[in-house]
Amino acid sequence: MTRSPTRLRCAILGASGYIGQHFARLLGDHPVFELTLLVGSDRNSGQRLSDLWQLSEECPPAASDLRLRSVGPAEIARRGVDLVFSGLPSGTAGRVETELARRGVDVFTNASDHRMDPRVPLLVPEVNADHLDALVRGRGARSGLIVADPNCSAAGLVVALRPVWDLLRPRAVHVTTYQALSGAGLLGVASLAITDNVVPFIAREEEKVAAESQRMLGSVAGRAVRPSAVPFVVHCARVGVRDGHLEAITVEARQRPSQGALERAWMRFDPLVGHGLPTAPHPAIALRSETDRPQPVRDRWAGSPARARGMAVSVGRVRWEAPYLRFFALSHNAVRGGAGGSVLNAELAAERGYLGRGRAT
Amino acid sequence: MTRSPTRLRCAILGASGYIGQHFARLLGDHPVFELTLLVGSDRNSGQRLSDLWQLSEECPPAASDLRLRSVGPAEIARRGVDLVFSGLPSGTAGRVETELARRGVDVFTNASDHRMDPRVPLLVPEVNADHLDALVRGRGARSGLIVADPNCSAAGLVVALRPVWDLLRPRAVHVTTYQALSGAGLLGVASLAITDNVVPFIAREEEKVAAESQRMLGSVAGRAVRPSAVPFVVHCARVGVRDGHLEAITVEARQRPSQGALERAWMRFDPLVGHGLPTAPHPAIALRSETDRPQPVRDRWAGSPARARGMAVSVGRVRWEAPYLRFFALSHNAVRGGAGGSVLNAELAAERGYLGRGRAT
Amino acid sequence: MTRSPTRLRCAILGASGYIGQHFARLLGDHPVFELTLLVGSDRNSGQRLSDLWQLSEECPPAASDLRLRSVGPAEIARRGVDLVFSGLPSGTAGRVETELARRGVDVFTNASDHRMDPRVPLLVPEVNADHLDALVRGRGARSGLIVADPNCSAAGLVVALRPVWDLLRPRAVHVTTYQALSGAGLLGVASLAITDNVVPFIAREEEKVAAESQRMLGSVAGRAVRPSAVPFVVHCARVGVRDGHLEAITVEARQRPSQGALERAWMRFDPLVGHGLPTAPHPAIALRSETDRPQPVRDRWAGSPARARGMAVSVGRVRWEAPYLRFFALSHNAVRGGAGGSVLNAELAAERGYLGRGRAT
Amino acid sequence: MTRSPTRLRCAILGASGYIGQHFARLLGDHPVFELTLLVGSDRNSGQRLSDLWQLSEECPPAASDLRLRSVGPAEIARRGVDLVFSGLPSGTAGRVETELARRGVDVFTNASDHRMDPRVPLLVPEVNADHLDALVRGRGARSGLIVADPNCSAAGLVVALRPVWDLLRPRAVHVTTYQALSGAGLLGVASLAITDNVVPFIAREEEKVAAESQRMLGSVAGRAVRPSAVPFVVHCARVGVRDGHLEAITVEARQRPSQGALERAWMRFDPLVGHGLPTAPHPAIALRSETDRPQPVRDRWAGSPARARGMAVSVGRVRWEAPYLRFFALSHNAVRGGAGGSVLNAELAAERGYLGRGRAT
Repeated sequence: MTRSPTRLRCAILGASGYIGQHFARLLGDHPVFELTLLVGSDRNSGQRLSDLWQLSEECPPAASDLRLRSVGPAEIARRGVDLVFSGLPSGTAGRVETELARRGVDVFTNASDHRMDPRVPLLVPEVNADHLDALVRGRGARSGLIVADPNCSAAGLVVALRPVWDLLRPRAVHVTTYQALSGAGLLGVASLAITDNVVPFIAREEEKVAAESQRMLGSVAGRAVRPSAVPFVVHCARVGVRDGHLEAITVEARQRPSQGALERAWMRFDPLVGHGLPTAPHPAIALRSETDRPQPVRDRWAGSPARARGMAVSVGRVRWEAPYLRFFALSHNAVRGGAGGSVLNAELAAERGYLGRGRAT
Repeated sequence: MTRSPTRLRCAILGASGYIGQHFARLLGDHPVFELTLLVGSDRNSGQRLSDLWQLSEECPPAASDLRLRSVGPAEIARRGVDLVFSGLPSGTAGRVETELARRGVDVFTNASDHRMDPRVPLLVPEVNADHLDALVRGRGARSGLIVADPNCSAAGLVVALRPVWDLLRPRAVHVTTYQALSGAGLLGVASLAITDNVVPFIAREEEKVAAESQRMLGSVAGRAVRPSAVPFVVHCARVGVRDGHLEAITVEARQRPSQGALERAWMRFDPLVGHGLPTAPHPAIALRSETDRPQPVRDRWAGSPARARGMAVSVGRVRWEAPYLRFFALSHNAVRGGAGGSVLNAELAAERGYLGRGRAT
Repeated sequence: MTRSPTRLRCAILGASGYIGQHFARLLGDHPVFELTLLVGSDRNSGQRLSDLWQLSEECPPAASDLRLRSVGPAEIARRGVDLVFSGLPSGTAGRVETELARRGVDVFTNASDHRMDPRVPLLVPEVNADHLDALVRGRGARSGLIVADPNCSAAGLVVALRPVWDLLRPRAVHVTTYQALSGAGLLGVASLAITDNVVPFIAREEEKVAAESQRMLGSVAGRAVRPSAVPFVVHCARVGVRDGHLEAITVEARQRPSQGALERAWMRFDPLVGHGLPTAPHPAIALRSETDRPQPVRDRWAGSPARARGMAVSVGRVRWEAPYLRFFALSHNAVRGGAGGSVLNAELAAERGYLGRGRAT
Repeated sequence: MTRSPTRLRCAILGASGYIGQHFARLLGDHPVFELTLLVGSDRNSGQRLSDLWQLSEECPPAASDLRLRSVGPAEIARRGVDLVFSGLPSGTAGRVETELARRGVDVFTNASDHRMDPRVPLLVPEVNADHLDALVRGRGARSGLIVADPNCSAAGLVVALRPVWDLLRPRAVHVTTYQALSGAGLLGVASLAITDNVVPFIAREEEKVAAESQRMLGSVAGRAVRPSAVPFVVHCARVGVRDGHLEAITVEARQRPSQGALERAWMRFDPLVGHGLPTAPHPAIALRSETDRPQPVRDRWAGSPARARGMAVSVGRVRWEAPYLRFFALSHNAVRGGAGGSVLNAELAAERGYLGRGRAT
């Protein structure tokens, strides 16, 4: 996909946060979206992105001199922004996002507020692009879209499950997480709380992982999504790792495919091939054959081409003793499970013609 | 239990290792056992324990001046040792232990070599003291006993499961571990392998946890033990924590006790009360009501009285949505899951009269 | 020192913080001071200490049921408190402490606000007990004392320097620190800031270490203290260690004692011997002869008797190539460099008769 | 520098180690050197580089299928290798390197064995390129060169000192290090030794930093190098950081330049500009103005262009209170202080015509 002469104008909400900075990293030089506005709080207003930069990765030169602005939905819409990427904290995000959509601005959000709204697609393009179509097509163009990406643990989980879901016809899915520090934001976990420690609790996380996974793996029924009824039994814990959520997954299966069939399904999984989405990794899953992978420090940046680094989900340690399929999956919580997920959602929506003033709705 | 005028004479095998040093810490001033010999390798022979000391806890004054000796089974027996505590690495332990027993020395071992031997009790006193009786009583006194403690992850697991086992009648048990560095010994995990990382693999660990748990939760049939048939579905991973194995446990239950009944069962669990075993914690389980416990750095030393520090198993985050009971358990891998477990095994065997020359067999 | 029938009644200010909890740990069962009041913020008022407990060490039973109260200086004085231990944050501490002293309550503070006040003793009993006498004796009993302990890095530093100071007659002292996370309080360092990292900056720390060390190593001139003129050249950095400040120290010396003379000076350093201060470690310094000590995880709890754990300063890796003496020193920042330091200060003041209504002034 | 049609053929010694893999990363697609041989131990012989890969960075595609060979100097020379990069451990490296040079193969080594050999240039191109000329030019072409890069801590140190050396005319240099785990190689530091800890000892490191820095900052006298007589007073410690050595540096100065003059000297320092060396960073130093930089996790990969990532030295927290200049410096120990340093040395030697069969000597 070459750079369009008429890129869509986008803004980032919550630009000073961890997810906000990953949005900036991905959108600083994007072929489809032109980053024109960084929205921050009163406290940060007027500061340049480069002054606030906290990531180990470089601040993109094209965005580093942009200054944060503390502006509301009306002003954002007035500035001709086509779409926003929301890295706002859950709780405050919902109202702002609704207001933006009401004013005709499309919203791609990483916040949880709208995820279970039946009219909002909860989207991972490799997993449930049909949900986007079902909920968006023909809905009338007056107001903007709201499209949510899932919880950072659910994102990697559903990508890992999707290719083997129908082969296994699960009776239950058991998930236990080893979640990274950055999942709680820049200041979310105090160092004394986690050094030489594991914390077996993340507020509301287990409920989100279960409900959101069931929704994304659900089926389309007319213009609605019917969640999967497969129980997700979830344990969530925080470990002292900077980035990359690791998950121990057990599927209790109704069917008995061969191990080879499972591995082929993962290796060949690339449903977005040929769509030209710049942030889509090809293939979507990195199947590891080593005895001790995936590992956060080595696999969190999996994904090619370069723009899709951190977007692939790594799967490894596959052990299939029917009826239990066990494996580990790893994904970068702030990329696949955060900013990158929403950018990919917007790319898919743009490709399908759902975005902007001339959208096909 | 007051200090006996005629304590049993004991030795430690593998005294320079992590488990060996925990044995020394516990036996340096023990009311039942008198530490008379530290057995090490040729390389360490002649060195004082204090010179090799690696634990953060203090080297017990009574043991610090003992020097390691590189001696074999024959010499150990000749020195009048009644029993040995074996912290030898699995693989080399088995042969030495068999030879010691053949020479009439009782063996309490942390190594895995004999754990699945049908004649060897795989013992956690709070869980399956009846296995000890079944396999030992009346077996004839010519040779020494071999009594094994389980894998460091299985030890905490079975203590946590035992009080609720019959209430739940499990259909399956799912266990995912967050295992500490010391579980691999002093040099087992390189810092570059684990800093900012999780390693989702520990050689043969998942198989051990499953098989040993089934064995310990099995039933006595005459003079044999019949393992439980409940499937244990296990994931094991290493995290960057010094000590303390945390486990996320889900029991799929056949029965539906109340949550209150489960909690009472855990809180009241104290099967060794009144037996006077110095290293037994009372109660056996610390049930935590906080939202975010147990945690390794805060709970690994649970257990009272003082001699039983690190021997209690902490249970918390109990969530019961039938048929799935979810909770976390934590235990000190080198104490409850290592040296302390074997010392407690020996205390139980002594109390039952199975040890030493005058044993009741 | 046996428990006095008439212990002095004490309160802790800032009882929910890291230093506050260490105060509670030390005062929960103290032979000279009786803990009668825990002062917290409005937010914590009414909660029991055990509910707020964050240390890995146990909450002392005698204090665990005390509830925090949000009360001001007038109310504290009205409750008959003889002395307070202040773990308030610097900045807010000063005004409260002044007000308490004005009302006749003695104040032993860990905050920095009064440390450079020429009328306030900045005290480490092993180092400059004469400063306490010079500033306190004969000053009139109307108001309470304020006695400050130094910055957590300065405390260990001056104890390590004191025994060799006159032998070396320093021309300059170079100090570079490896400071623990707890030095910044329970929430002071975000985990993302320090995991896999070192942060070479702690606000105002280098200035404090230099100025406070010069003051404590200064000489008494009548009723004032004249700071040492020896330059302290200081670098401070934070590392990912829970507790224990390590310092690399170089003294550029004017004199050339033998290495043996230096080591003897450290080993024999025990100026408080015979004073019966319960929290004083004997000896004051643990001189390590190993090649790679002191280390935070192994040496931070140095100090005996049991009540003085964490109060000894460990010195090691002594290298003397005139004119440069190099060594490392380690001390527990929250004990020797925090709560324990102030408790020892109060013990010294009590022993000298400076405390309470019947004080000798 | 465009890719030469006749690149020099190079081999890597110790290709399975941490430095060896960084050599492979840098040489897998190099415009001047063609990687033709990976030399490993008997144990690794026959394995592909990708099977042994341990770095978080990607294995370069061009090298990933190369197989390690266990071959000696004679065989290496016979295979037409022009130069070798040696990542062999110190101790075994020296003899092999001497033998290779004897057979006409040029050697660029990261091992310490030859560093203090008066005929061997100990080289950091930005610092002492004149030493290379003095020791190599006109020495006759019969045998191969041996060129050493310095200890990983000394490398960053001398780059940071060079621009301000003549401005300050140092009386003494004080250096205290915070060294990363990878400086000890893949298995060098056990996780239990360093988790929640700092280890204030690295064997022979302090001596190397002092002596090597004095040598590199020494002056050319005819065909020899006369070391600087300025004393280097060094403390070395290991911290729990994956990569990046941080150093606290104090220069006691004889002269009193303005702070502005010092900062300009650092910012403008780019002595290799215009030489076309692919791995040279431009500028050589990244001067940080933030209050809390440089930091390992954020600054270790400093350096541009892309091929020079990890080669720049970051300098920050500059505090100049005459006569003491204090600052922190950071460099990637395995790149600037390891493989990258030797590759840059070889690029300089190639540019000056000292390499290969047609060398100008």
